[in-house]
Formats: sequence, structure tokens, C-alpha cells
Amino acid sequence: MERVAIATDVLKRAKRLVDPALVARLATLHPDLRRAAEYHLGYVEADGTPAAGAGKGVRPALALLSAEAVGAPAEVGVPGAVAVELMHDFSLLHDDIIDGDQQRRHRPTVWALFGIGQAILVGDALQTLAHQVLLDQRTDAGLAAGHRLAAAVAVMIAGQADDMALESEERVGVDECERMAAAKTGALLSCAAALGAELAGGDAQAVAALADFGAHVGLSFQAVDDVLGIWGDSSVTGKPVGSDLASKKKTLPVAFAMAASSDTARELQAMFRNGNLDEAAVRRATDLIERAGARDATEAFARAHLNTALAALDTDGLDPRVTGQLRLVAEYVCERQL
Amino acid sequence: MERVAIATDVLKRAKRLVDPALVARLATLHPDLRRAAEYHLGYVEADGTPAAGAGKGVRPALALLSAEAVGAPAEVGVPGAVAVELMHDFSLLHDDIIDGDQQRRHRPTVWALFGIGQAILVGDALQTLAHQVLLDQRTDAGLAAGHRLAAAVAVMIAGQADDMALESEERVGVDECERMAAAKTGALLSCAAALGAELAGGDAQAVAALADFGAHVGLSFQAVDDVLGIWGDSSVTGKPVGSDLASKKKTLPVAFAMAASSDTARELQAMFRNGNLDEAAVRRATDLIERAGARDATEAFARAHLNTALAALDTDGLDPRVTGQLRLVAEYVCERQL
Repeated sequence: MERVAIATDVLKRAKRLVDPALVARLATLHPDLRRAAEYHLGYVEADGTPAAGAGKGVRPALALLSAEAVGAPAEVGVPGAVAVELMHDFSLLHDDIIDGDQQRRHRPTVWALFGIGQAILVGDALQTLAHQVLLDQRTDAGLAAGHRLAAAVAVMIAGQADDMALESEERVGVDECERMAAAKTGALLSCAAALGAELAGGDAQAVAALADFGAHVGLSFQAVDDVLGIWGDSSVTGKPVGSDLASKKKTLPVAFAMAASSDTARELQAMFRNGNLDEAAVRRATDLIERAGARDATEAFARAHLNTALAALDTDGLDPRVTGQLRLVAEYVCERQL
Repeated sequence: MERVAIATDVLKRAKRLVDPALVARLATLHPDLRRAAEYHLGYVEADGTPAAGAGKGVRPALALLSAEAVGAPAEVGVPGAVAVELMHDFSLLHDDIIDGDQQRRHRPTVWALFGIGQAILVGDALQTLAHQVLLDQRTDAGLAAGHRLAAAVAVMIAGQADDMALESEERVGVDECERMAAAKTGALLSCAAALGAELAGGDAQAVAALADFGAHVGLSFQAVDDVLGIWGDSSVTGKPVGSDLASKKKTLPVAFAMAASSDTARELQAMFRNGNLDEAAVRRATDLIERAGARDATEAFARAHLNTALAALDTDGLDPRVTGQLRLVAEYVCERQL
């Protein structure tokens, strides 16, 4: 079986194990909040009819594999998988409002469909539910997992605050951009990759290695996402072509381009000084960034962090059969179009 | 010393004990989020200059007293006091956006001043921080307290969802209104009143009695608040006169009026069917509600729940010197203008 097929198989198996627990938790919500949450998660359409189910479920899969990596059955990781998925969805629901994004995965976002008030409240409900899932374990391991999840979310929120602050800046540095990606994307992926092992009572070194793996997968994944946000096929990404540049998002390719040449930096800054970019300006900016070698630099960044992530798996106490699967999932999500 | 003076003294003492811990926690936030949170909490003005500090701090005071009520020093309740205050502020920040309220305590709300995106994110940060404060204890009592707080917040959020659903209804029943008040206000006050005892490892019966006390204080407090929202002095309440009716809020007095007479119900429903109420309509509705005896009924409701709350304090295992203080604080917050 080829690598991609194995990876998607691992993700599907995780989904089968996690979905019932996730659906059961969503059923405890207020009916209005449940409906919006199930729509967001792709279980139902806006009118309540069943839908195919969206999302690859990378975070829950990492949580299950991390339990198995320290020798526990995948089931031990299920509360971690559910909690981390709920926390991810909470952040997407609120980020979509904050960023004014009207589309996600080819469908209207929750705030665009149900209103901002409802979308705020659903997000709040999912954050609370995520904490409850872990605390309901009422075990020391559940407490440690709850602690880890809350810490990751605090970092993720600070990263979003940095992102908002950056909106009013004309320049962005590569370090700054990397720090933001580590906070916004890396923290929760790191948590996902360690949470199952934490729930399984895995030894501290193994848990730390898995957390490190997840953090670097996060950085690699974000770099790939940034490349797709500029050069990706909108029918695949689900976002309009060039939308990241049109809304002047300070992504890694932009940061690399500004660092590469002062002429490029000057021209991009001038473009970013005014309102949103029109189609011609997006084309010009895309061209500038590519010619500055920033696409290559971002792809190299993604590969480097993927390699660092994979190296972290080479740690005593992790089952090599399971780390093989973690490797395939990481490669799958970090090599989408590269 | 008269009763009110003792109650305000108890609240001030609690503030002195809780404020440093609260301020230290806020200092861990992203600078932009910290600034907005400190503004919301009344520590600073919009321009960053120091302010008098707002809020009576009823919830933190209850948390401290509940630790003392089961024989522990007040300090044991401090993490509970901080957590419950942060959770209350999280809910205010988001509710102000959802309700479109531009003023709170005579100042612009956070969303009105810093924007909706920032206000969403600050609220999220405070919810996360509240969970962290309890989990950071890393004790069984901290876990039990975290569990109780998350459960209370889940109920509070469901109550807000009910409130939103009710907006599009013309009628409201007394039971429905009471259930909503129990969820939106009672759940967190109940949690506050039990959280210190939970952290102190108080016995289950004592903790349950304190939770019961807080739940009924919440119902009484909400009824008083509803009366003030219609007949209160706006210079005291900090809200425009008649704003609850102008925005067609389905409060307890409205529910009692609709239950009292079908003529009153019909006329109020007709008013609630259209857009927001103008000044003349607010006056007419106020008159209708008063003549239906609904102000008296709401005040009787408030007194009855205050009495139930006080009766709950008469439980073995609670220190009578401390329950005396709990009684005075409850009377103080539930008898504001009655």
C-alpha cells in the first residue's frame, strides 16, 4: 500500500473510533448550539440533513496514535482526541468571526449562516466542553491532560492576538512569523500529539518527544498552508485564490520576501499600506514574492520542520510500529501540494 | 455596625485578598488582551491610566467565605475566587457583544471600544485562564473545583442560548424565565458559593448546602436586577432607563404580567411583535406590567428565594460566624432597592 493510502487509512480508523464519542458529547449541548456545532463539524447541512462529515481529523488521530505510541490501546486516547478536536473547532469558529471569513471548506461559516452572537456562543460552548471531557476522567492523568490542553489554548489565543496586532503593521519578520505559527498552529498540534500519551500515563521523556514532534509538524503544516494560501488551487483549498494576499495576511512567504530584498520589501510595504489588494495587485505581489525566492524558502522551511518532527520520534519508549504511522500522517499533512 | 456596613466591609476585605492574585494572573496575558481585560475589570481607563476598580466582587467574596465556612483560612479559597471572577468577566464580555450593549457601568463596553474581534479574544483568554487557575493547583480538590466550574459554565452558556432563542418569541412563561435565570445567573453564583469549600476539601453535605445557597441567591439577585432594569434609577444601574423593555427583554416582571392577565399579555405581545419600543411604548408597557401586579410578584419572588438561600445555610458543618457573613452579603446584593 502506498504511503498516502496508509495515512488516509490511519485517519479513517481514528475517525471511526472518535466520531461516536464526539457526537455523544455534542448531543449534550443546547439544541441550537448543537445544530450549529454539527453544521460546523460537517455532520449536517444548514437545514439539518445529514452531511458527509468534514475535516481530515488530523488532531484526533495524533491523540490516538500518541496513546498507542506509549503502549496503551487507542481507546485510552479517545477523550484527548475529542477534547483537542473540540478545542480546534472552538478556535476556528471564533477566528472566522475575527477574520471576517465567510467561507470555510466551500460552505458558509457559522457566523455567516447563524449570526455572530450564535457563533460566539457555540465556540464558548465547545471550549467549555473540551475542558469537561478531560476533567470528567477524574484521574491524575486526566488532570495532567487538562492542564496541558489549557496551556496550549492559552498560547494559541496569544498567537491570535499577535496576528491581530500584526494587521496594522506594514512589515513582518521571519522570526516573528515563525513565533506566531508556533503559537497559533504548533501549540495545539503539539498538545494533540502528546495528549493520548499523557492520558496513558506515558513517561515524561516519551510525552515530551511526542509534544516536540507535534510542535514541528505544526510549523511545517502552517508553512505549507501559507504556500497554498498564495499559490494553491482554490477548488482544493476552499478559499478564493490569493485571498491571503488580498487581505494582506502577514504569512511566512511574505516575511521571507521582505527579508530577501529591500526593494521587494519596500514595494510590498507600499502595497500593504493601503486598503485590501485588488486582483492586479495580488498578481503583482505574488510575482514579487516568488521572484524573491520566498516560495522556495517557505517550502524549505516546511521540509526542515517536518524533518525535525520526524527526528523527535526516534526516542526510547516509543513503539516503532506506531511512530511509523505518525511519520506517514505527518508527511501526508505536510506534503499536500509540495 | 449596621448590616450594610458589615456587608460592604466583608466585600472589601475579600477584594484586598483576591485583587493581587487576579492582577498577577492578568499580567500573564498577551499585552493587548491584558489591557482590554484590565479596562473591563475597571483597573485602568481606556488610555491605560489607573482607575478606581469596578464591581462589588460578590462572587470572589462568596468563594472566600465558603472556604472559611468549612473551617479553612480564606486564602484556600483564593484560586476559586480568581477563577470565578474571570469566568464571570468572560461571560460579560461575550454577552455584551451578543446583546449589542454599548455601555456597562457608565463606560463603553470592551467591544464598543476595542472592536468585536478583540472582545471575543479577551473573553476566550479569560475563560481559559479561569480553568488554568484551578488546574494549576494540581490537587484532587483543584480537580473537583475545576469540574464544578466547567459544569457551571456549561449551564450558563446554555442559559444564554435559551435567552437568545426567546428573543424571537412573543410570549414568555414564569417557569421558563425562572429556568433561564437559574442557568444564566444562578449556576455561576452557586459555583462561587461552593468553590472555596470544595478547594478546602469540605464535606459533601456542606458543599451542597453552600451551592444551594448560591443558586437561590442567584435567582433572587436576578429578580431584583429585572426590577431595576424597568424601575431602577439609571444613575445607579448604569443602564438607560427602560432599556430592558426598549429591547424587549423577556424578564421576570414581563413573564409575571403575561401570566396575570390575558388582556395585559395580549397587549404586551402586540408591542413585542414589532421593532424595538420607543419611549412612549416603554412607558405604556411599564404601566401595564405594574398594574398587572408583576412588580410586586417579582419582588415577592426575590424575597422568597433569598429566604430559601438563607435557610440552606442552616446546615451542620458550616461555621455559624461565617454563615452570618454570608447572610449579610446575600441580603446586601438581593435587597438593593427593594
